[in-house]
Amino acid sequence: MPAPDAPAPPPGPGDAAFDAERFRREGRRVVDWIADYLSTLAARPVQSQVAPGWVRSQLAAHPPENPEPLDAVLADLDRVIVPGLTHWQHPGFFAFFPAGSGGPSILGELLAAGLGVQGMLWITSPACTELETLALDWLRELLGLPERFASTGPGGGVIQDSASSGLLTAVVAARERVLAEAPARTTDIGRLVAYASAAAHSSVEKGVGIAGLGRAALRKIAVDARGAMDVAALAAAMAEDVRAGRIPCFVAATVGTTAAGVIDPVPAIAAEARRHGAWLHVDAAWAGAAAVCPELRGPIVAGAEAADSWGFNPHKWLPVNLDCHALWLADRRPLIHGLSMKPDYLRNAATESGAVIDYADWQVPLGRRFRALKLWMTLRMLGTEALRDRIRGHVAWAAWFAERVRSDSRFALLAPPSLSLVCFGLETGDEATAALLEQVNRRGRVCLSSATVGGRLALRLAVGGTLTRREDVEAAWAEVTAAANAATHDG
Amino acid sequence: MPAPDAPAPPPGPGDAAFDAERFRREGRRVVDWIADYLSTLAARPVQSQVAPGWVRSQLAAHPPENPEPLDAVLADLDRVIVPGLTHWQHPGFFAFFPAGSGGPSILGELLAAGLGVQGMLWITSPACTELETLALDWLRELLGLPERFASTGPGGGVIQDSASSGLLTAVVAARERVLAEAPARTTDIGRLVAYASAAAHSSVEKGVGIAGLGRAALRKIAVDARGAMDVAALAAAMAEDVRAGRIPCFVAATVGTTAAGVIDPVPAIAAEARRHGAWLHVDAAWAGAAAVCPELRGPIVAGAEAADSWGFNPHKWLPVNLDCHALWLADRRPLIHGLSMKPDYLRNAATESGAVIDYADWQVPLGRRFRALKLWMTLRMLGTEALRDRIRGHVAWAAWFAERVRSDSRFALLAPPSLSLVCFGLETGDEATAALLEQVNRRGRVCLSSATVGGRLALRLAVGGTLTRREDVEAAWAEVTAAANAATHDG
Repeated sequence: MPAPDAPAPPPGPGDAAFDAERFRREGRRVVDWIADYLSTLAARPVQSQVAPGWVRSQLAAHPPENPEPLDAVLADLDRVIVPGLTHWQHPGFFAFFPAGSGGPSILGELLAAGLGVQGMLWITSPACTELETLALDWLRELLGLPERFASTGPGGGVIQDSASSGLLTAVVAARERVLAEAPARTTDIGRLVAYASAAAHSSVEKGVGIAGLGRAALRKIAVDARGAMDVAALAAAMAEDVRAGRIPCFVAATVGTTAAGVIDPVPAIAAEARRHGAWLHVDAAWAGAAAVCPELRGPIVAGAEAADSWGFNPHKWLPVNLDCHALWLADRRPLIHGLSMKPDYLRNAATESGAVIDYADWQVPLGRRFRALKLWMTLRMLGTEALRDRIRGHVAWAAWFAERVRSDSRFALLAPPSLSLVCFGLETGDEATAALLEQVNRRGRVCLSSATVGGRLALRLAVGGTLTRREDVEAAWAEVTAAANAATHDG
Repeated sequence: MPAPDAPAPPPGPGDAAFDAERFRREGRRVVDWIADYLSTLAARPVQSQVAPGWVRSQLAAHPPENPEPLDAVLADLDRVIVPGLTHWQHPGFFAFFPAGSGGPSILGELLAAGLGVQGMLWITSPACTELETLALDWLRELLGLPERFASTGPGGGVIQDSASSGLLTAVVAARERVLAEAPARTTDIGRLVAYASAAAHSSVEKGVGIAGLGRAALRKIAVDARGAMDVAALAAAMAEDVRAGRIPCFVAATVGTTAAGVIDPVPAIAAEARRHGAWLHVDAAWAGAAAVCPELRGPIVAGAEAADSWGFNPHKWLPVNLDCHALWLADRRPLIHGLSMKPDYLRNAATESGAVIDYADWQVPLGRRFRALKLWMTLRMLGTEALRDRIRGHVAWAAWFAERVRSDSRFALLAPPSLSLVCFGLETGDEATAALLEQVNRRGRVCLSSATVGGRLALRLAVGGTLTRREDVEAAWAEVTAAANAATHDG
């Protein structure tokens, strides 16, 4: 029987971490701060000009004992943090690939943080799981990806933080499928090999390394003149490995290489992978978004019907904030086999019924944020037609820029323009091109990045920012030519 | 020379994804929605009562062609999403471990999304990297962790998404250290073994599996009567593996087990790890936060001076939102060796100078959000004393609850209370305890979870929510006793 005279618990302080009225006030200030930041961004240099250590040197070296007001934080943001940023949302940011963002997505992140739920299992917040499954089915439909990736079959989609993590989990699934199928004790991980083109993203080598195959187990297959994987070379490498007693386990095909946006011949690669029972993963991290446009879709989704996994990042070229990698599986079982853990402290009737998805089983981490909100809100609040318009505008602007490059005899296109990506350089060579890049980025109106394309240093202009307008693409060309003029003049 | 008559780029639509005035309006509405949600949460059932598939069945099956207003999204949030959530921020949520949240942290997430920068390299946003390094140094100091984890030496701290990912990267670092030190070709991954107690978190086995050692390479060391790792059993297992030609590679010690909050004898475990040259990782995912209080710190940081890596989740018991795992390394080189990739498209002078940190080299993904903001803003806007008060309040409330359990002969404490965690059950046995859990959670005022502790089913009450007040802990006891009374009555 309970003790009748139970004393009350000790008082304990009211928790300072949340006060609704304060949150309303401060939330408005932060919303306004962001609106001001984004709408005045064009006036700032795109790339941070600070020296290593400067940011830290400007901030308190120790945490404060007593609370400081939001004002103090915002003052430091203005004074120290903002000058220390390279502004990925700047309309003149054309470097790397774009970092997706947009009003609905930012509000989706805010809501996810405000709700503060943790969706590791279906039971720990059913809506967190079911909205994700739905949003990935929406996205599959929107991209025209095959039915086999729909969650209603043996496969389905999941949001991961990045293409690197998506790829790692695909390698793990591939590895488990091979090891599970092999006769006991005759196969070990040291015999497994993986394949990707020499132009594939570094995350393939990183993932193969993390998964314990060893980085040396990745065969970097030669590329053809276009920069796409040479399928004959792939076939030869696989045959050679089999002859040597190794087991082809994983093939990554790239749809849109990082350097130049080149699309591998996925159907032919799929045939080679199938011949050896290897897992085929398609990495469409950046280019995948363009499949929302039916007229661009063909080469992007070609071969997807033969892929075991297919991934792209809405957080690159769709207006969805990092982190949002969409990964689809044709068969989710090997993935779950490699990643599921069922400790007693997570046991629950819904899981045991088999009727629900527990997304912790589809990823490296256990805990997970409610990332589906930002994706679902973006699709709803913009509508699919606006996403197509956006992609089409970016592609047209890149084509315009490429035409300018072609029209100027000092410059060369170093690869055919791919979607919204243009790779170009100075005819006078890599050294001049490198100097041009430094000059352009130092001027601060636009920011480009570089890569090696066909053995030459290329400047990369990737159109895709949410705030980028046609004037900014014009400005990019003006900046490039101004820097080239200055160099010619100096020379 | 440039063509003089360059036409303007095609118009392209104004991008619908961001409009500053609309963002101000909608941002305010979402801030208010969150404030309303959090301040009326106590009136809702903690745990979602929906059936599998209900959430999805209530939402549009296809993405809309045309934009929908924020109102439509908020209406669906109220009608479908909120009933489909288990409310981790509910004042009566005592299940699993708490999911940290707080006003400053939510605003930090909002700012991170609004800034939309990507901090993979120092150069891609210096402030994103330097604020993270600073915030982790602050946190090290606040927890009283050894100087060896400071970023000013060969080690340093990094924010990862989860304890699982932190642990995986530690396994990879350990693996690389062993393989790098071993004479060429004499060592392969199949000989590496790892160790953790049988009560360690499932992420250890998951991480060892992902990293390619194989789940069977994890030795689950027996625990003593307290539930802590039996160091003699560890020593015996290591010796046996060495005799059999295997290589002890990685040892995970747990500070605060998931089931019952038990602390492993880290100093003694460290001595065994050192004897065999194995990497020592300390997983203090939940309990680590309590080290902010000097009077609780001793057992939590004991042995940290001998650990190669030490991690905890501010996103559990500090008011910082998921995802925020703090991982410190004594020597960052093996980690970077295992995870760094330097493709040509990321080459830059700052990286080559060696004067900066590129955090992509410290984690699985390449891209990264500006997560340091929410941590730094929480520390500044609350101050360190408020964090200590918070922890002390929760510990005192848990002690009060444990005292109630002790005072009621129908109940038994199934483990000594640990910090803010109480494990208890009905004297009549596991079946009755399981029925009690279901009954309590169905009533909806509070939510508990369960685990196996010392072979018995225990209910877990983990105090730690930002909105939880003393009344809620009182209510938890009232709910538990009411359910027990009803059960006695029924029986």
